Amino acid sequence: MTGLIVGRFQPFHRGHLSVVSDLRRAQPEGSLILAVGSAQESFTAENPFTAGERVEMIQRALAEGRVNGCLPVPVADIHRHAQWVAYLRGLLPAFDVVYTNNPLTRLLFERERIRVESPPFVDRKRFQGEVVRRRLLENRGWEELVPPAVARFLVELGAPERLRRIAERVKGPSAESAP
Amino acid sequence: MTGLIVGRFQPFHRGHLSVVSDLRRAQPEGSLILAVGSAQESFTAENPFTAGERVEMIQRALAEGRVNGCLPVPVADIHRHAQWVAYLRGLLPAFDVVYTNNPLTRLLFERERIRVESPPFVDRKRFQGEVVRRRLLENRGWEELVPPAVARFLVELGAPERLRRIAERVKGPSAESAP
Amino acid sequence: MTGLIVGRFQPFHRGHLSVVSDLRRAQPEGSLILAVGSAQESFTAENPFTAGERVEMIQRALAEGRVNGCLPVPVADIHRHAQWVAYLRGLLPAFDVVYTNNPLTRLLFERERIRVESPPFVDRKRFQGEVVRRRLLENRGWEELVPPAVARFLVELGAPERLRRIAERVKGPSAESAP
Amino acid sequence: MTGLIVGRFQPFHRGHLSVVSDLRRAQPEGSLILAVGSAQESFTAENPFTAGERVEMIQRALAEGRVNGCLPVPVADIHRHAQWVAYLRGLLPAFDVVYTNNPLTRLLFERERIRVESPPFVDRKRFQGEVVRRRLLENRGWEELVPPAVARFLVELGAPERLRRIAERVKGPSAESAP
Amino acid sequence: MTGLIVGRFQPFHRGHLSVVSDLRRAQPEGSLILAVGSAQESFTAENPFTAGERVEMIQRALAEGRVNGCLPVPVADIHRHAQWVAYLRGLLPAFDVVYTNNPLTRLLFERERIRVESPPFVDRKRFQGEVVRRRLLENRGWEELVPPAVARFLVELGAPERLRRIAERVKGPSAESAP
Amino acid sequence: MTGLIVGRFQPFHRGHLSVVSDLRRAQPEGSLILAVGSAQESFTAENPFTAGERVEMIQRALAEGRVNGCLPVPVADIHRHAQWVAYLRGLLPAFDVVYTNNPLTRLLFERERIRVESPPFVDRKRFQGEVVRRRLLENRGWEELVPPAVARFLVELGAPERLRRIAERVKGPSAESAP
Repeated sequence: MTGLIVGRFQPFHRGHLSVVSDLRRAQPEGSLILAVGSAQESFTAENPFTAGERVEMIQRALAEGRVNGCLPVPVADIHRHAQWVAYLRGLLPAFDVVYTNNPLTRLLFERERIRVESPPFVDRKRFQGEVVRRRLLENRGWEELVPPAVARFLVELGAPERLRRIAERVKGPSAESAP
Repeated sequence: MTGLIVGRFQPFHRGHLSVVSDLRRAQPEGSLILAVGSAQESFTAENPFTAGERVEMIQRALAEGRVNGCLPVPVADIHRHAQWVAYLRGLLPAFDVVYTNNPLTRLLFERERIRVESPPFVDRKRFQGEVVRRRLLENRGWEELVPPAVARFLVELGAPERLRRIAERVKGPSAESAP
Repeated sequence: MTGLIVGRFQPFHRGHLSVVSDLRRAQPEGSLILAVGSAQESFTAENPFTAGERVEMIQRALAEGRVNGCLPVPVADIHRHAQWVAYLRGLLPAFDVVYTNNPLTRLLFERERIRVESPPFVDRKRFQGEVVRRRLLENRGWEELVPPAVARFLVELGAPERLRRIAERVKGPSAESAP
Repeated sequence: MTGLIVGRFQPFHRGHLSVVSDLRRAQPEGSLILAVGSAQESFTAENPFTAGERVEMIQRALAEGRVNGCLPVPVADIHRHAQWVAYLRGLLPAFDVVYTNNPLTRLLFERERIRVESPPFVDRKRFQGEVVRRRLLENRGWEELVPPAVARFLVELGAPERLRRIAERVKGPSAESAP
Repeated sequence: MTGLIVGRFQPFHRGHLSVVSDLRRAQPEGSLILAVGSAQESFTAENPFTAGERVEMIQRALAEGRVNGCLPVPVADIHRHAQWVAYLRGLLPAFDVVYTNNPLTRLLFERERIRVESPPFVDRKRFQGEVVRRRLLENRGWEELVPPAVARFLVELGAPERLRRIAERVKGPSAESAP
Repeated sequence: MTGLIVGRFQPFHRGHLSVVSDLRRAQPEGSLILAVGSAQESFTAENPFTAGERVEMIQRALAEGRVNGCLPVPVADIHRHAQWVAYLRGLLPAFDVVYTNNPLTRLLFERERIRVESPPFVDRKRFQGEVVRRRLLENRGWEELVPPAVARFLVELGAPERLRRIAERVKGPSAESAP
């Protein structure tokens, strides 16, 4: 059985790893696709890391955690909800079940008669991408929220400095010259 | 004479029906194009219904109200205001006059020397898409704001449930996995 | 040596002219490319003028100020930060240095090993596009913020009236019929 | 029962009218959606007429032939076959059956478990868009291939002259200045 | 060391497997990214299989051949050669070397100072996607050109029938109704 | 008076320079916009040079020929003929007349009531982009077809080698790995 989990993984944190690891343990003979959403985005406050960087942090965290049978796939947004499930089915290997706690994601898959299950939550207050990104910006306390391999990778990338630069606003003649 | 009215019709409510019906009565020998804007959007808080569903509710409401001579046409956004009038002219049958109370819409058409008229308002406080969508979300009092045929269609679609699912926010590892 | 400055120039104001003029004086034998960003946008609150109008106001202001050696180039957004520098390099003549005070712009160019310098600020409180647009909307005090040639051009365009129409919000059946 | 027929209708000819008319007669209580494909195309050899012009010629021909219950809808190409059926379902009112003789169209709809039927052919040699366009270019013998209302409309549009201009190739410095 | 190989893999044949297998053997400690190009295409003569199907056939063939350390990634075309390398770098994990025999691919990567190597050819006459697709269309002799696991998968997909339907051309009123 | 000339300028040759130079001499007090079309294309057989390279060769040739009052502007294709004139008007400074020998270009501008004139031809057999590109590919006899400044620039770019690499076709496992 092949499962699908969709996220942006900005960054891949311990909550993600826990869910993925549990799903793999529950279905050791199957496999799991990790759709890395908003793949076209990077260097923004919401999406600081490129899709390639996100795939790489997933690979490193799974290798470190000895979780196998996972395939991370970058998926760009299409901003067309009515086509989104068909788009994913065209881009990904065939899957049998989708794991999500997002009611809209559930709605869209169920409309196409695809089985949807809710994975259990893991300390939902702490393990949120938004929290990790805020701590990265302030460069304090983020290391404990991500797997060690991801922490090392984020240091290599200069992630706190990147978040800081993205967040800065300058007033003046060239202030509007953002890309 | 062919008129054009542009809206998103999320959903098609009694204010829309009243304007369309009045315009058709005033020009019985002409016809009226209803451009169904933001056609690429659906399953969002602002645009819960697909273009096809909106075309269908327009057809049902007009049939019920015995209003004829109308052509609903889905029109996707191009997000290029300087090309928008040329885009509409390419997509729609030739039209002679545009009915709008939106000052920007008026400006863009007048720049191309197309005649613009303002339709009278119909109890503008109640008959707004935003109000109907809010009531659909709370599932109370929305039926009186839409034509009966639209009310029945919205029930068929499970509209209140759809609005509720779109609005829900879940915190946790998979919270960011929205499409 | 060819420099590059990126802005939206909505509109081209005296702060812009001052920076451009200083850069040209400092490198009289070189040239300066003015990338006119968000070129696809117009008739919105943030981007009221078309790219063509912005190129034209730059040309008029530079002619009036006797600043030569500048090339204004309209550049549409691609909304893909990871490709943005490659996109600019494909669209523009070769350049040696980028002038910017925007930290993200700096980051993206430095990642590609392109030299970045910060131009000095010119009374940053007053000379901001946002301030000029707000004053245009209120139609008072904007003339002193732009070069005389731009002021005349903005009058020709009916800029205050345009800003006013863009800003207006109408409630009612046709309120959502914006382009 | 609602049927769907997909075509480019470049232009709407007597073969199209015959099929549409037969389908309507066979299902008088139902309705028929005419998806006007490649809606974004116009002024090319393959697609000389805008979507709006095509919708208009369909309306005139159906009125002339007293065929009712049809809804022409412009549909832009998405060039993504795996999403095409989902795209149409989002854009169009709900439909129960698709009429097509195109094997690929059949394949794509059947994959989504939508009923497909083949309409009978009507003198397939003569009634082809390609033949009508070639005769329009040569401005001889095209009138008999289209309904009278379409013939009058094509004269209004200056169709033969348009086809001729599109087809012309000029060699020289400005030869490559095509849009 | 991470290598990159770019292909369309329509379908993944024994020539592909041989190259991938040799590269993995030569760098057992490294890894190899397989960019599955033209990911947005499917159900056309040149690109009959979806990106998801292609990823799946790669996974099956590599599992069968006991080749590990490979990551297949679907990559949609951007049709902007000047941005193509930046696009790939944003979408993929970091790579050190590109393997290609395509002179244009080589040129584009070398311009960005990325190391490029040419993999040896494997009986180039037989092992070409074009040849496999032609034989699939004729449904004879294609099995020997693909790994056994891919052959089984192509049978599951009904590949010869799919190729045949895509290739068919019908003349008549609905002939132009292709998606 | 401001004129507009639209071309792809792949590359800018002596035929282009002659037309531009004549137009400038005939209207010394006016100005001329050179829209550099298909700006998004590069490194293809039809469009080997980036828009930036084309703008740069135009600048060099005009400086060498002491032709002033010209503004080269890169213009990406929109592939929507019905919107093309509106698109150009939004992107370019206001213009009064278009110079073209292309019948379709003439048709599209005349539909918008813009004045169109035909510039005289200059030895049309020799001075064609296609001829220059073919000679560049064969690396013989191309220098005499372009202004000396362009010839030097093309040597700097390694143009013959670039054309050769683009043209090469390799058969084999990686043959389809083109960008």
